[in-house]
Amino acid sequence: MPDIDLRSDTTTRPTPGMRRAMAEAEVGDDVFGEDPTVRALEERTAELLGAEAALYTPSAHMANQIAVYLAARSGEEVWTHELSHVVANEQGGTSVLARVLPRTFGGPESVPPQEVLDAWIAGTDDVHRAQPALITLENTFTGRVMPLEGQRRTVRFAREHGLRVHLDGSRLWNAAVALGVPLAAAAEGPDTVTVCFSKGLGAPVGAALASDAGTIRRARRARKLLGGGMRQAGIIAAGALYALDHHLDRLAEDHARAARLASGIGGLPGLSAAAHTNMALLTTPAGQAARYAEAFAAAGVGSVPIAPDTIRMVVHLDIPDSAIDDAVSRIAKASAALHG
Amino acid sequence: MPDIDLRSDTTTRPTPGMRRAMAEAEVGDDVFGEDPTVRALEERTAELLGAEAALYTPSAHMANQIAVYLAARSGEEVWTHELSHVVANEQGGTSVLARVLPRTFGGPESVPPQEVLDAWIAGTDDVHRAQPALITLENTFTGRVMPLEGQRRTVRFAREHGLRVHLDGSRLWNAAVALGVPLAAAAEGPDTVTVCFSKGLGAPVGAALASDAGTIRRARRARKLLGGGMRQAGIIAAGALYALDHHLDRLAEDHARAARLASGIGGLPGLSAAAHTNMALLTTPAGQAARYAEAFAAAGVGSVPIAPDTIRMVVHLDIPDSAIDDAVSRIAKASAALHG
Amino acid sequence: MPDIDLRSDTTTRPTPGMRRAMAEAEVGDDVFGEDPTVRALEERTAELLGAEAALYTPSAHMANQIAVYLAARSGEEVWTHELSHVVANEQGGTSVLARVLPRTFGGPESVPPQEVLDAWIAGTDDVHRAQPALITLENTFTGRVMPLEGQRRTVRFAREHGLRVHLDGSRLWNAAVALGVPLAAAAEGPDTVTVCFSKGLGAPVGAALASDAGTIRRARRARKLLGGGMRQAGIIAAGALYALDHHLDRLAEDHARAARLASGIGGLPGLSAAAHTNMALLTTPAGQAARYAEAFAAAGVGSVPIAPDTIRMVVHLDIPDSAIDDAVSRIAKASAALHG
Amino acid sequence: MPDIDLRSDTTTRPTPGMRRAMAEAEVGDDVFGEDPTVRALEERTAELLGAEAALYTPSAHMANQIAVYLAARSGEEVWTHELSHVVANEQGGTSVLARVLPRTFGGPESVPPQEVLDAWIAGTDDVHRAQPALITLENTFTGRVMPLEGQRRTVRFAREHGLRVHLDGSRLWNAAVALGVPLAAAAEGPDTVTVCFSKGLGAPVGAALASDAGTIRRARRARKLLGGGMRQAGIIAAGALYALDHHLDRLAEDHARAARLASGIGGLPGLSAAAHTNMALLTTPAGQAARYAEAFAAAGVGSVPIAPDTIRMVVHLDIPDSAIDDAVSRIAKASAALHG
Repeated sequence: MPDIDLRSDTTTRPTPGMRRAMAEAEVGDDVFGEDPTVRALEERTAELLGAEAALYTPSAHMANQIAVYLAARSGEEVWTHELSHVVANEQGGTSVLARVLPRTFGGPESVPPQEVLDAWIAGTDDVHRAQPALITLENTFTGRVMPLEGQRRTVRFAREHGLRVHLDGSRLWNAAVALGVPLAAAAEGPDTVTVCFSKGLGAPVGAALASDAGTIRRARRARKLLGGGMRQAGIIAAGALYALDHHLDRLAEDHARAARLASGIGGLPGLSAAAHTNMALLTTPAGQAARYAEAFAAAGVGSVPIAPDTIRMVVHLDIPDSAIDDAVSRIAKASAALHG
Repeated sequence: MPDIDLRSDTTTRPTPGMRRAMAEAEVGDDVFGEDPTVRALEERTAELLGAEAALYTPSAHMANQIAVYLAARSGEEVWTHELSHVVANEQGGTSVLARVLPRTFGGPESVPPQEVLDAWIAGTDDVHRAQPALITLENTFTGRVMPLEGQRRTVRFAREHGLRVHLDGSRLWNAAVALGVPLAAAAEGPDTVTVCFSKGLGAPVGAALASDAGTIRRARRARKLLGGGMRQAGIIAAGALYALDHHLDRLAEDHARAARLASGIGGLPGLSAAAHTNMALLTTPAGQAARYAEAFAAAGVGSVPIAPDTIRMVVHLDIPDSAIDDAVSRIAKASAALHG
Repeated sequence: MPDIDLRSDTTTRPTPGMRRAMAEAEVGDDVFGEDPTVRALEERTAELLGAEAALYTPSAHMANQIAVYLAARSGEEVWTHELSHVVANEQGGTSVLARVLPRTFGGPESVPPQEVLDAWIAGTDDVHRAQPALITLENTFTGRVMPLEGQRRTVRFAREHGLRVHLDGSRLWNAAVALGVPLAAAAEGPDTVTVCFSKGLGAPVGAALASDAGTIRRARRARKLLGGGMRQAGIIAAGALYALDHHLDRLAEDHARAARLASGIGGLPGLSAAAHTNMALLTTPAGQAARYAEAFAAAGVGSVPIAPDTIRMVVHLDIPDSAIDDAVSRIAKASAALHG
Repeated sequence: MPDIDLRSDTTTRPTPGMRRAMAEAEVGDDVFGEDPTVRALEERTAELLGAEAALYTPSAHMANQIAVYLAARSGEEVWTHELSHVVANEQGGTSVLARVLPRTFGGPESVPPQEVLDAWIAGTDDVHRAQPALITLENTFTGRVMPLEGQRRTVRFAREHGLRVHLDGSRLWNAAVALGVPLAAAAEGPDTVTVCFSKGLGAPVGAALASDAGTIRRARRARKLLGGGMRQAGIIAAGALYALDHHLDRLAEDHARAARLASGIGGLPGLSAAAHTNMALLTTPAGQAARYAEAFAAAGVGSVPIAPDTIRMVVHLDIPDSAIDDAVSRIAKASAALHG
């Protein structure tokens, strides 16, 4: 492992306060609905997101997959960005569990362009074609904040055509902070919303799915089906509750540091960089992303090449200002060596 | 129904000779492997395609789905053109039956560009990603003949990376005629090949999957699983055998007529047209395909809008030269009215 | 193949009249809903069964699987006899296609005993348990006629608890004849009913699913999903229509011959026999069914061992009185040799 | 919640020592394989079970489902007891995830009788039948210890016929203690073994699947597919490690207490009782199990009716001798009232 680990905000470790909260958590058997800490976390999450109910899950991946499983019957279509986490990074789960057919679009935004929606909705009465059931959005998407107007437009279209909308808001906390709106505003519209406690918020394990009460009742059964029913889960739920209390507001610091990182790297030979919430996206010479990332790793800076000319760096709880400056100077040396 | 029906070559009706062959077919219980006519058709098909064995199926759709089901485990990826029949026109079957995740590319050809293959094969060890198992090709593809070099290149790549290749050759007969090569040459390389008897060949029902003997043994079980085991299927298999004897060479006539149709329409106001094997693809003013197709239907000419500015017309057994000329003159009137 | 083939009524071959009807059938493209003979068969079947609509399928297997697929969501339970065709003889299809969990009971009847129903419905709110969705019945069941009161009781129970009922009536024709009631009476109650044209009725290919209009609309899509959409299927549908016209009443002859067969065999050393509709069930010495069936086959009489001490013989269209007498005398010799 | 909770050993709460261990756990991102505590738990578990490798999962349910998913292709059969946890208590998961068809037997033991195996293996070449792939065992099974000879016999049969064996050993700890053999001896033979840390061992969350290294590599992917990849799972893994260090030997106390409980209840009017490892099974008058369990609950003693005349009581970490005696006297009063 690199000593400045910017690969992902999933690598954060619990703080001493969070560890204490977990050690002292009151617990019960959550499969029987008897764990008071899990219940408190679910109620708190629902309230924050303006939803009727929420369900704690071992991962955001599972929350996403449950949402798709409940929204569509097998053989129906889910419309989504070709790089959305739900189809591109969840092991083909939408085919295995929900058995839906992805219909995908590209581009920098996770919101489907209106002309794509219009083209796809036409001709759905063809007997050869799968029927659409669900549109998924993602916010943030590769760090980018989704404009809420796009979300509203998508939800309106979906309502009109009897489709459901799922929002993968694993990093919705970052989006709300960046937009300067309450979480409930960022979550408004979609039928189901995933949020994740183990990314920027820094809790060790867990995510939640929020929705109406009926959907969450069915989601509880689906979670059991997937083996996600955990017994005294209050131990880890306590970490998530602690994160909601103490790590939500501080996300602005991560965003500022990502900006500082991008601005430090942007001027370097061969590299340009842009910051989006807690991520810096570096553009390398064509086809060189993997090579640059390896050189950074050798210099002790962890990052992830996500396209042939793009490297992702993620700032989080464990990355102070000093690490940013240190990373910039190491990257400067490494890229000079490569570029020279 | 329009009186000049160019919607598809699936609408052909059996000729008197074919009806006679079906009425006189020797039959047995094919679920027990005892129908001599089905066996003869399977052997004949395998031989034509240079394969060890073949399996008769109620439809090309079923042959395709069986091929995918056998080639991949659930959660694996199938790489295919976004408009390939197997993902775009089979009711989401690849998600429901094989439970594979499609990874799709666009463009006019059904063969994946080399740079797409190279990009996709990289990073398959990421624990988030589904693993590739299968590449599918289609020949002809919207009437277009696939260059055999593309097929060879794809098969080489697949071999190198432990993937399988399926060829949806529902209209491979047309491709072989257009390329001037034997069927076996057009079928060479892929692990499984679908051919269809009820499109250009004019048989009423049925298709076949060809492959090595072991795969066909497993395919026989998969056909039963899907409910495709038919008892005295020799009745309809006889129609397919008759078509192989009498309708294979005449496909060149269909191609000539499609060319004549395209050349007749190409000059008309607002329209351009190109012929590919037995299909003519018309380009209309932007977004007008549906409107033009409706006007043609009102004039008694059936066609199918397949994109906002593209109409497909398919020539087949039941379309003589006179119908071509008649269609051109009706289309001329209809488009003049629209354009005027 | 044995020359007196009593393995199954699936082995019947089309009569000259039926062949003529098929050769002359009017056809169209049934995937577009344009085949008049298929339409006529579907309407005729629906009418006979007192249903709103019916769908032609390549096999009873497919009709059954479609019914289960439409009746239940994945992970729900189907309650059925452990030897019912739908779970025991369809290649695990209920797990692959509908993904339902079978909960099975044993005994000689296909109707679930009331105490089984009562025990199973209790405790369905347990979060560990799958939820019930469907009960299936089968009539005839190993040749046995199901008392209609059992069907009525099951349907009442299902209605009360929000479950659906499917009747696998592949041989419902035989049941109605044996009960002396109209087909519509034998089909009354269940939400979906399968009937088969290629068993006792003697058509070469095909079956149908009957239900309300909405279910059949969805079934049409599911048939396409499974690859069961056939183009000019009127050719084979004509055989089924012919069978409905000419082979329905004659089933009583098969039943009489099955009785004659059972009575001829019943007295033989080591064997007892009972007739149920068109089947004779022979009881052999314990564990000897396979050995006896082999000896019968060597003597030119085909049969199927269906349990360690049970052999099934099925009488059908191609088995005249003389074949019955011939079979009895050959079986007498064979069993004497075994027993001596 | 009753104050003497004998419903299940899943309700145990972490001890102060265990809480301390969790609070101090060293963690990393386990999706990247970087959590040292999870790794230590996996290695320790594999070693205890005599396996090459093990995988930590959020629940025994998920470990079981992964084992079935990896052992069989869709449409194959899993042979199992009709009350085995894997088919009866996991939400139909085997149909949804692995899509296998259960073939079930009854009786008091989880080991399939030899005559059942012999009957089922015969005739698997029938084209109508699903093919067997897997046999599952369970130890303990409703508290009962499985004789190791039964496990050996089943494994031998499976090897001979190319089947795999999975052992649901969620309570294998109890079985090994009761048999007086090392865990590795109790785990010997099956291809995959599930053990659970959150039942008798008293850890809050988690289970493990043990197998050969190749299977565990594939299992890691399957766990991700199901959403079971947790980030800093070392927090909860630390609880499981603590339980292996401190709670394994003490299971003998639970068994002694279950015996004391059964012996105290056995003499009461209308009740008989037997102890199996940490469970007491009470037999009530016919059909009265639910009524008795309600009366016990009203008296503050939690239990679960598992059949119309059977109640299960489970002893665990949180149940001292005094609670046993207290429970017996309350049950005595409650049953006297019911019986009087």
